[in-house]
Order: sequence, then structure tokens, then C-alpha cells
Amino acid sequence: MSLHFTHDTLAQRVMLGAGRAAEHLRAEVERLGARRVMVISSARGLVQAREVAAEIDVHTWHTDIAMHVPVEVAERARAVAATNDIDLLVAVGGGSAIGLAKAVSLRSAVPSIAVPTTYAGSEATNVWGLTEGGRKTTGTDDRVLPVTVIYDSRLTLTLPVALSVASGLNGLAHCVDSLWAPRADPLNAALAGEGARALAAGLPRIVQDPSDITGRDLALYGAYLAAVSFASAGAGLHHKLCHILGGTFGLPHAQTHAIILPHVLAFNAPHAPAAERRLAAALEADSAVAGLERLYELLDAPRSLDAPRSLAELGFPAAGIPTVVEQALAALPARNPREVTAANLSALLRRALEPPRPVERSP
Amino acid sequence: MSLHFTHDTLAQRVMLGAGRAAEHLRAEVERLGARRVMVISSARGLVQAREVAAEIDVHTWHTDIAMHVPVEVAERARAVAATNDIDLLVAVGGGSAIGLAKAVSLRSAVPSIAVPTTYAGSEATNVWGLTEGGRKTTGTDDRVLPVTVIYDSRLTLTLPVALSVASGLNGLAHCVDSLWAPRADPLNAALAGEGARALAAGLPRIVQDPSDITGRDLALYGAYLAAVSFASAGAGLHHKLCHILGGTFGLPHAQTHAIILPHVLAFNAPHAPAAERRLAAALEADSAVAGLERLYELLDAPRSLDAPRSLAELGFPAAGIPTVVEQALAALPARNPREVTAANLSALLRRALEPPRPVERSP
Repeated sequence: MSLHFTHDTLAQRVMLGAGRAAEHLRAEVERLGARRVMVISSARGLVQAREVAAEIDVHTWHTDIAMHVPVEVAERARAVAATNDIDLLVAVGGGSAIGLAKAVSLRSAVPSIAVPTTYAGSEATNVWGLTEGGRKTTGTDDRVLPVTVIYDSRLTLTLPVALSVASGLNGLAHCVDSLWAPRADPLNAALAGEGARALAAGLPRIVQDPSDITGRDLALYGAYLAAVSFASAGAGLHHKLCHILGGTFGLPHAQTHAIILPHVLAFNAPHAPAAERRLAAALEADSAVAGLERLYELLDAPRSLDAPRSLAELGFPAAGIPTVVEQALAALPARNPREVTAANLSALLRRALEPPRPVERSP
Repeated sequence: MSLHFTHDTLAQRVMLGAGRAAEHLRAEVERLGARRVMVISSARGLVQAREVAAEIDVHTWHTDIAMHVPVEVAERARAVAATNDIDLLVAVGGGSAIGLAKAVSLRSAVPSIAVPTTYAGSEATNVWGLTEGGRKTTGTDDRVLPVTVIYDSRLTLTLPVALSVASGLNGLAHCVDSLWAPRADPLNAALAGEGARALAAGLPRIVQDPSDITGRDLALYGAYLAAVSFASAGAGLHHKLCHILGGTFGLPHAQTHAIILPHVLAFNAPHAPAAERRLAAALEADSAVAGLERLYELLDAPRSLDAPRSLAELGFPAAGIPTVVEQALAALPARNPREVTAANLSALLRRALEPPRPVERSP
């Protein structure tokens, strides 16, 4: 990786403290001088949101949220905020709650605080998304970045193990892909390495004991860094492939990521020695490929995801490979460390089609 | 180190490109829409500043600068900026030029771009300093943080090797101290580790060949991370000791840092296993102490600093130890990983008093 780069660091306060969300939220509302707070959460998450907001005055509770932030949902939330003269949004929950707060910030410039209860990572990026007529539009705007993120691993204790692992491995895929994504640079590589280290340390602890606070802390911290580095570096080969497999063939998100990641790593690692060494160190293994393999064994993944171990078991047909290859070659990310050809990409997908690990290690 | 923390990330664009300062400055002036630019540099640095500003329109050249930013110098610069309706400051040089731009930003809110030509690191912090009647006042204010930092290692080729090593080791001390400073957290530790890695890789290359661009790139990048992590984590034991040795006994800055650093590392490392492992990995050695020792051998430091290898050779008397201990105990940084007592601090200073390395490794 070249040392020559342009890197934009985004301003954000991050607070991490198990059991301290309510205290941290009160401190931040005071620091920001907010007087009319709107809390955004799902109806199901309202009990948890009330705990988080126990020490502040809440002017408006808003539970009218939906996945992928439909424009009409965003417009209603913006209108509620405007009508009530809201000066601070507090999103408690996963991607839907945080995404909705971002959509309101985008249209109204009212700032937000995010209190994430999953490992989705949206809270650490300036990326917004809106869905209209089933079609998703995304963009970046610094106004949508939450001013403060409050992580409290106690809020994640009810996140089921399978979902925790799936979400955490998606974060790990963000870290790995960040090492060779189009805007990869030494800064986001350092953060991605740190994120991978935290996720690799935290996820096995959660599998062992879902209520392990240190494991949950590490997973939240790792998911945060995964999001920061991925938002900065952009999507690399892994995410392009998964996007096609999901979009064109309807394969499920988490499982596809978990199956594809070791194959893309084995594909690129020999051609990206610095990334390979960084990841090997983060995974505390002699090589990145061996480290990821050991992590999968520790997690017993993808089994903890109740997922198959190969694309074939997901129902992906060998006959689909040429289509994926064609679409992937047309949308290759810039600066992949290894030249991607129809031949080597087909070989990668053929390996992913079949169950047996360990994955092939040679280029 | 606890995973529970509050961390403020500051917004800044960083551009690193050897030989590209003029091109990057033009792009940033356009992006920011600045129309009346004031370039701040020393009179001696004016030739270099003109090269950096070759592709932009400069309204005002300002060379009335001085070390430690005297208040009257800051006031004159502010008045010049106001009279000329300046909307962007561009500081080209070391701590004096960048510090003056910060002082103007503090009083006028005019933003700045920093183009550093040393490894001092001021460009990456929100810390300002002003001197009045020989007394220095410092503070933090996000308005003084340069909007953009433009690093161009070609501008540092004339920095003498001894000064490069001294300045680089000061940066390394910032990285090491950040690992156990009062506001140490996993994020600034990750950046400090990355900074240490870059400095340890870059400085020996500069000693080998002062015009080695990769070595200069690495040193600039490492100095940047050293500043970011130190500003975030605060001063630890090392800097407290050096501050006393410099302030009360008048010992020279760089040499004192170079002599003290291995002793503080040996003192704290056994009590800070995570920091020790991170630093050992950054220095690519089995232990942090061994890694630092090998780096010193590679740099032949402190010899490249034209400096003695012990406090005694700097003229520090053994009889001064109780005074340092007394002052240090009264101003100990919070959260040092090892309990500091009169006895163990005296022992540390006695070891630093005498020349022979390798330094003592056991606690």
C-alpha cells in the first residue's frame, strides 16, 4: 500500500461503558445543551430505549420506523421533529433507528446521538440511505454522522449468538476488505487491523458465554472500527462479490459473507503482503488465512449462523458462476492487489461452491 | 487498559504525497473556496513557502514569526489578517509557523492549512500556545486545528539527520507515553502503535540515506500519528520526568527524551502487558524493551544527536535525584500502570544517570 494518500477523519465522540448508557446520554444532552429531545426506536425496543433515556427529559418518543428507511417514513419523522421543534435526535437500536435519525439530520440538520444495540456500524459513518419504491439510494453527508456514539454492551446481551456472530463476521469482512479497497490507506488499515483484532477476540467469548461483558465490549468496539475503516476505504472485492451474489441470486447476506470471506482473503493475501501481515498479527496467527480459519473453528462458523458452509448449500448453482464473473468484472473495485480475471475469479467461486475447508491457500 | 473510554476524534483532512504539496494546496484552496490567502512562514523558509504556494494566488505573505508564539507576534498577525480580509491561513514550516496560524485562528476563527516541514506534530492537534513575558500559556480549542494537513516529504529533505532523529524520537516518546497516559484508550493506543511502527521503520532509513523518500514519508506519517495519539491521551510518566529535567535542571529537550525513554519503558512495560505487546509488535521485536534497544543501535542514538548517553554526561548531578523525585511525585500522571514511589523512581533515575546500555529489563 502506498504511503501517499488523502484521508478524511470525521469528528465524533465515542463513549464505551457497560451499563453506563443512561449516564453517558445525560452527560451528552447537557454538554450539547439540548432542550427538546426526540428518541427514535422500534416499538419492540421501547423498553430498552426508556432505560437508556431514564436520566433525561424526552420531549417526543418516535417508534414509526422501518427497515431500509423508506422515504415516507423519513418524511414523517422529519415532520414530527419539525412540529415539535426538536433540537436533538437520540436513536436507540440497530440500523433502522440510526438510519432514520440520519435521514432526519440530512433534511433538517438536527444532530443525533446514536446508541447502537447491534454491530451494524451505521453510527460511525456519514453514509445515509433511503428507499423509494423498493429502490435504495445512498449518499454521504457529514451532517448525518451522529455527534456522539454511546456504546453500552449491556444493551447487546439479548442479541442472539447466531446473529452476534453473523453481524460480527460482517464487521470482520469490512475490516479485511478495507485493507485493499479503493481508498485504502495506512490510517484506515491501522483502524481495520485494530477492529479485526477486537472482533477476533470478542466473538469467541460471546459464543462461549453470550453474557460475557468483555466479549460484548470487544465486539462493539470492533464493529465501530470496522465501520470507520470501511466507510473511509470503500468496498473491495469481497463486498462486490457478495453484493452480486445477494442482488442477482438472492443469497442471504450474513451467510454469503461468512462463506466468501476466506476465499477472497486467500485470493488476495499473497499479493498484499502488508495487509496479510497486519491481519495475521490481528488474528494472532502465522498467516492471515490460518488465523481466519482458526477463528471460524472457534466460532464453529458458519454453523453458529445455522448456515451452510458452501455456496452450493446456499442453493447457488455452478452454472451461475459465469454470470457472477461477468457482473464482477464489469464492476471491479479499483486497486485490487491481485489482477482479477475471468479465470481466477471463476476458480475462486468454484472453491467457494464446495464445502470442504481448509480453503486453498496458494494463489 | 480498560475498554471503557470516551474518545474525541477530531475532523481533519490529511494529504501525504512526496513532491505534491503545491498541487494538493491548490486543490484544497479550491475545495474550501478561499479567495484571500495569507501564507505564514519564517523569512528563511520563504523560498520553500513560495514553492508550496506556486499554484495558488497569495494575497499576503507573512514572515513576522517567532518561537513559542509571543502574544505580540500573534496580535500583529491577527491584525494583518483582519486588515487584509484574509479567509484562509496557510502555514508552511515548523512549530513556529503552524503555532502562529493557530493563534490567529483562535482569535479570528479564520481556518488554516498546515504544510509541516518538521516532525513536531503541532499540525495534528487542537492545542494552542502563546508566550507572554516568558511565560507560556496553552489551551485546547477545536478552531485552531488545521482543516487540512499537507505532508510532502520533499520539503523535509533538508532537515539534518541529527535533528530528524531527535525530532523523530520525540515523536516515538509521544507514542510510547500515549499507551499509559491519563486518557489512554484503545483508539489512541492503536494510532500510537501505528505511529511507533512508522517511526521505527522510517528513522533508520533517514540515518542511512537522508534523501530516502520512503524514510521521510514514514517519519512524517509517524510524527502525525504520534501527535494525534499524544494529544488525545495526554502526557504520561515519561513526559512528566522530561518536563522536570528540562524545566528545573535546564537539560536539553531532545537528548533528555532520548536518554529517559528506554528507562521509563523498562519501568512500566512489565506492568502494562497490552501496551508492551503492542509496542513489541510495532518495533518487530520479542519485547518492547529489546525493540527500542535495537532501534537505538540502528540509529546509533543518541550519538546521531551529538548527545551523551546518560544524564550524567548531560551534566545532571546524582544529588539532583531527590528534587526530581519530589517534583515528579507531586505531579504524577493519573493511571500510570505501575505504582510510582520515591524508591522506584530514584532507582529509575540512578539507572538513567549512568551510561551503559542495555537498560535494565526487570521491574
